[in-house]
Amino acid sequence: MSAQTASGTDRVVDLDDILAAADRIAGVVLRTPVIPLPHPARPDELLHCKAESLQPTGAFKLRGAYNAIAQVLDQARANGIVAQSSGNHARAVAWLARRLDLHAVIVMPDAAPANKVAAVRALGAEVELVPAARRDIRPLELAAEGYVHVPPYDDLRVIAGQGTVGLEILEQVPDVETVLVPVSGGGLISGVATAVKTLRPDVRVVGIEPELAADAADSFRQGRRITWEPERTYRTVADGLRTTALGVHPWQHVRRYVDDILTVTEEQILAAMRQLAIEGRLVVEPAGAVAVAAWMHGVVPVGPRTAAVVSGGSVDPALLASVLRG
Amino acid sequence: MSAQTASGTDRVVDLDDILAAADRIAGVVLRTPVIPLPHPARPDELLHCKAESLQPTGAFKLRGAYNAIAQVLDQARANGIVAQSSGNHARAVAWLARRLDLHAVIVMPDAAPANKVAAVRALGAEVELVPAARRDIRPLELAAEGYVHVPPYDDLRVIAGQGTVGLEILEQVPDVETVLVPVSGGGLISGVATAVKTLRPDVRVVGIEPELAADAADSFRQGRRITWEPERTYRTVADGLRTTALGVHPWQHVRRYVDDILTVTEEQILAAMRQLAIEGRLVVEPAGAVAVAAWMHGVVPVGPRTAAVVSGGSVDPALLASVLRG
Repeated sequence: MSAQTASGTDRVVDLDDILAAADRIAGVVLRTPVIPLPHPARPDELLHCKAESLQPTGAFKLRGAYNAIAQVLDQARANGIVAQSSGNHARAVAWLARRLDLHAVIVMPDAAPANKVAAVRALGAEVELVPAARRDIRPLELAAEGYVHVPPYDDLRVIAGQGTVGLEILEQVPDVETVLVPVSGGGLISGVATAVKTLRPDVRVVGIEPELAADAADSFRQGRRITWEPERTYRTVADGLRTTALGVHPWQHVRRYVDDILTVTEEQILAAMRQLAIEGRLVVEPAGAVAVAAWMHGVVPVGPRTAAVVSGGSVDPALLASVLRG
Repeated sequence: MSAQTASGTDRVVDLDDILAAADRIAGVVLRTPVIPLPHPARPDELLHCKAESLQPTGAFKLRGAYNAIAQVLDQARANGIVAQSSGNHARAVAWLARRLDLHAVIVMPDAAPANKVAAVRALGAEVELVPAARRDIRPLELAAEGYVHVPPYDDLRVIAGQGTVGLEILEQVPDVETVLVPVSGGGLISGVATAVKTLRPDVRVVGIEPELAADAADSFRQGRRITWEPERTYRTVADGLRTTALGVHPWQHVRRYVDDILTVTEEQILAAMRQLAIEGRLVVEPAGAVAVAAWMHGVVPVGPRTAAVVSGGSVDPALLASVLRG
């Protein structure tokens, strides 16, 4: 059964879903370059950085969101689209709505920072601020009215879209042996691991998350989906990775395809941001730097043929400035 | 007469030279992406940024240097290569030497900053420090001993190599109407203008330089090659553009193919660096941001189909930090 018609929570996407996604998103989503990053202590050693931070909205999120929307474009044109996010997913959905001339409602908690609200409004989307307790319900209400709901990660079409990152890594780094992927809700690593393990079962796929938001590593160790309290995950500087649990669909993919999930410290994340900026010439937010941090600091024992997904690129200028000052 | 056999100073490269260079450099030099950059005041307006800052050494210089070396590879293997530079050209030649397993001597003035010396040594090249007055002579002495001399811009093979940036812009932005190019010694704009004007005479090619190092704009206005005193060009923060005059070969291309050369202020350069970092997620040194600065500040009246070459990406972390703090 294909992802598009699956409804059970034990369904996973397959390679055909991801290949179909690749066809759909071509021309809208950037095929991002792979940038070689030297290791700070051993400059001859290079990490292959898949620079998803260079997508038009600074993150891989466009891939999954567009793969979902493109499959119900008539409904989206007639009724509009809705998403719940104040981060990179919000920007991706708003950007796609403008590009496709769709009406978009982005639901955010009323405590969302003003600059994040403004960034989404600048892209032409309608922002609806709701009490935090209602932010997951409000999109479902709008979906019941006919809006197309675009979830950030817990959706098979979204997972298939993110999987195109995995296809591109295999094409761009044909001799890759290990792929490091940031983990939050798990949509990205689910798609990447499915693509990589189906085509190249010998390649290791390892998830990386902050140790201050290590719900996925916990889940992986314990063999069941663990939820952390928001008070815990919100401690990390990596605001893109504060999701409190893997999604239900992502968990099915992670347990099936992912080799390991490891963690990095806050200091390691900031050092990776600096290395990416100075030696990789890439501006990357903390969430986008975790996989690089793991490689830089030997968290994961890797050989020379390692690739890391680097995403996203929406960083507080003051934070980046302080990282650069060292 | 092709560039490879031309010796007169009035010779120019042609499209065949540039197409041959494109074949030579494929696989060694990155085909850099074009990143859309929103205008700070009119976010719907996008500049197509050709991100040469993402080359392995952070600048387009690899293209010309490799095109030159590849044509005399046997001699380079036997005797080594030499270049005079303490900036992006030095890093490019050192990187290529390591990649091709060649002995490289990089000649630098003895007043070169220690970090620039260290960066080139880290790439495995031999650095020879000489009094400033001898820095242009020393490479010629080594060339007389058999070394292959790789000039930074005043060389037809180097110009042809840089021209591949123009080919790629036409392929990646097929509806482009204006191409903005940073100008220093003139190798880059010579190659780009030759490629663009030969294939698409309707496309405008405009050079951009700091008003504090405007020797090329002066030359263009007066119709002859003007040299500025180093004391003048060294005032600009754009240390990659402090060359005191266009090269002899570049001047022949500029007068033939370039539509205009315009200037930007120091403040405009720093504002462009900030916009590139925050909205383009690209780390760019001041020299790499001048073309973007011209577009952002209306220095050049341009329509929506404008591309700019963005290169290089070797920035002092403290300077970038201060730019980010605004």
